[in-house]
Amino acid sequence: MRDAVGFGVFATEGTAPRVGFRVGDGILDLSAGGLSAGGLGDVFAVPSLDPFLALGRSAWEEALERIDALVSGGAEVVPLAEATVHLPFTVGDYVDFYSSLEHATNLGRLFRPDAEPLLPNWRHLPVGYHGRAGTVVVSGTPVVRPCGQTRPPGAEAPVFGPTRRLDLELELGFVVGVGSERGVPVPTAAFREHVFGVVLVNDWSARDIQAWEYQPLGPFLGKSFATSISAWVTPLALLESRIVPAPPQDPEPLPYLRVEGDWGLDVELEVEIARTVVSRTNARGLYWTMPQQLAHATVNGASIRTGDLFASGTISGSERGSEGSLIELTRNGEHPIGLGDGTTRTFLEDGDEVVLRGRAGDVRLGEVRGTVLPARFPGSAE
Amino acid sequence: MRDAVGFGVFATEGTAPRVGFRVGDGILDLSAGGLSAGGLGDVFAVPSLDPFLALGRSAWEEALERIDALVSGGAEVVPLAEATVHLPFTVGDYVDFYSSLEHATNLGRLFRPDAEPLLPNWRHLPVGYHGRAGTVVVSGTPVVRPCGQTRPPGAEAPVFGPTRRLDLELELGFVVGVGSERGVPVPTAAFREHVFGVVLVNDWSARDIQAWEYQPLGPFLGKSFATSISAWVTPLALLESRIVPAPPQDPEPLPYLRVEGDWGLDVELEVEIARTVVSRTNARGLYWTMPQQLAHATVNGASIRTGDLFASGTISGSERGSEGSLIELTRNGEHPIGLGDGTTRTFLEDGDEVVLRGRAGDVRLGEVRGTVLPARFPGSAE
Repeated sequence: MRDAVGFGVFATEGTAPRVGFRVGDGILDLSAGGLSAGGLGDVFAVPSLDPFLALGRSAWEEALERIDALVSGGAEVVPLAEATVHLPFTVGDYVDFYSSLEHATNLGRLFRPDAEPLLPNWRHLPVGYHGRAGTVVVSGTPVVRPCGQTRPPGAEAPVFGPTRRLDLELELGFVVGVGSERGVPVPTAAFREHVFGVVLVNDWSARDIQAWEYQPLGPFLGKSFATSISAWVTPLALLESRIVPAPPQDPEPLPYLRVEGDWGLDVELEVEIARTVVSRTNARGLYWTMPQQLAHATVNGASIRTGDLFASGTISGSERGSEGSLIELTRNGEHPIGLGDGTTRTFLEDGDEVVLRGRAGDVRLGEVRGTVLPARFPGSAE
Repeated sequence: MRDAVGFGVFATEGTAPRVGFRVGDGILDLSAGGLSAGGLGDVFAVPSLDPFLALGRSAWEEALERIDALVSGGAEVVPLAEATVHLPFTVGDYVDFYSSLEHATNLGRLFRPDAEPLLPNWRHLPVGYHGRAGTVVVSGTPVVRPCGQTRPPGAEAPVFGPTRRLDLELELGFVVGVGSERGVPVPTAAFREHVFGVVLVNDWSARDIQAWEYQPLGPFLGKSFATSISAWVTPLALLESRIVPAPPQDPEPLPYLRVEGDWGLDVELEVEIARTVVSRTNARGLYWTMPQQLAHATVNGASIRTGDLFASGTISGSERGSEGSLIELTRNGEHPIGLGDGTTRTFLEDGDEVVLRGRAGDVRLGEVRGTVLPARFPGSAE
């Protein structure tokens, strides 16, 4: 399907939110017409992908076949410009990995300048942590600059105020359709039975808040104010032709992390700030693959649910201009980057719009947009 | 109300799960009788506290007044022994703090023996992180010993297998009733408007998995396999007479973390393993208080939802026998503790039942029970 994007939830003026499939700049209304017949039931006449996600792989494939036929047949679509979009699914748990070797190395150098950048566990397991599911927002939602504690260089005590180092993180996330039972791991070979598709993710980060708070239990308020995802979930089935070898892994991982076949994903990615593309990279460079991430996250018996979101961690390449965050692009703020309007950036400024885009051959991933709004001090809004 | 415990979800044979209030070893069925009249509607005739939690403080108070009258009037109750209990509410996000000075100091010494045990941020903010909401289970649910990667002492590479250092963590959690808007912090003074009540929490931990994985992003699989909570949520309103001064804080925290009045909670706690009480402590010793935890978690604009669970972190006192985890009680497994049956423990063994109990004067907190089941290797279940 040329320019297929994926499934999402939309509404037009005066109508209720419902499930649609975006192709190019049009939305096929799946709650109308022939889609709700057969095994699919009424899963599209609701304001969430949740019931459809829970149906499983054969229903996902059936829906895609019918959509393909409708699109080929020239079915009428709703112009994207006339629609508002909603968060496409209820986010269960949100896990964020750290799967790019280049990103982990870059950040290790910045956060722990006196030590080996890559910690001893990094090549043995996909390092990850839980983020805040309740603040995952849909593309287009503005992001208020967060306040918090930071410790200025050389100071003894922390100060309170708006972050001065607001960053973006370019990530690719996968969305669980079919859950699993607690106590039973999901092996790498079962990935396609559980996972429906992918979204682009902007894991907004306040670097100064993060640096002060993150030891020993990891990032918390430096990340929890907002995480933006695409309005459209691209089914894995549309990306099959873009599956390529992932980078070689050395040492060979433990058996539960081994994968049959290739699981790199050839998705071209770009980051735009205030209408200037500041980074171009590709998801195929990620060291840890999606089936490995899911197998790892469940090997202890942790169960998964419909709507669980697992993000890759920042996707950075090895060349200048392929880093997926400003802290890397600007070398910790020391080398500002230039924008098309003649201004420069170290970190994000109020009013900046960030857009993440992805393309995998004929398929487009839903973009992720978000504009930074000025901080509101506690109490100032009253 | 003598021996009041709190609100939960129960069923008896052949009946649907519904909301009840436990007093002693009886359950008042709130879906029957006069409770659903008035402003409370039908919030009790459902298998979850969620709708009741969302109603807010005046409805919570109204319900408690009516329950008090019914109990005083000798209303009939369902014997606890005839009921099965369910997870009382839908867990939104689960946050775990690290609020006991004694616990943070003890663990710092064990995990980072060559450094200052307390990190520089600890006395300035309530350190916390997100746990896995989808694996929070109700008291009585067995816990399968998790498998995972660990690195044996002196080894270069990790190995895979069941944890050898399965631990419990004695914690007190608070449950959000009324959510907040994204972008707007919840000040310490608004705590009672948002928070409904408390539960005991056992944050099961696999110490060997945790030690290998947790840097730099914090605990993940060492905790995510299961977290057990009470079946009964004790309303804050029942604990008012047990509010006492918390330990002094030095240095004085930043203004957003300052609290009017006292917020220590005088709740006597105990941990039992295989029918032997191995630890006795009190929640009043926690350094960071609940309103400070909530104010901190939202100061960056992160929103909260009905059902969000915030746990204290392990509650340890300063004396021997008052530590809330085995890693502390046994000094990292080097000093086994004796049980009543003549056996000893360093960490938990298969078949061990762990029970957490709490009492605050006339009020009992719902106990948290869980029995350790043997590990299942991936594939062995097929």
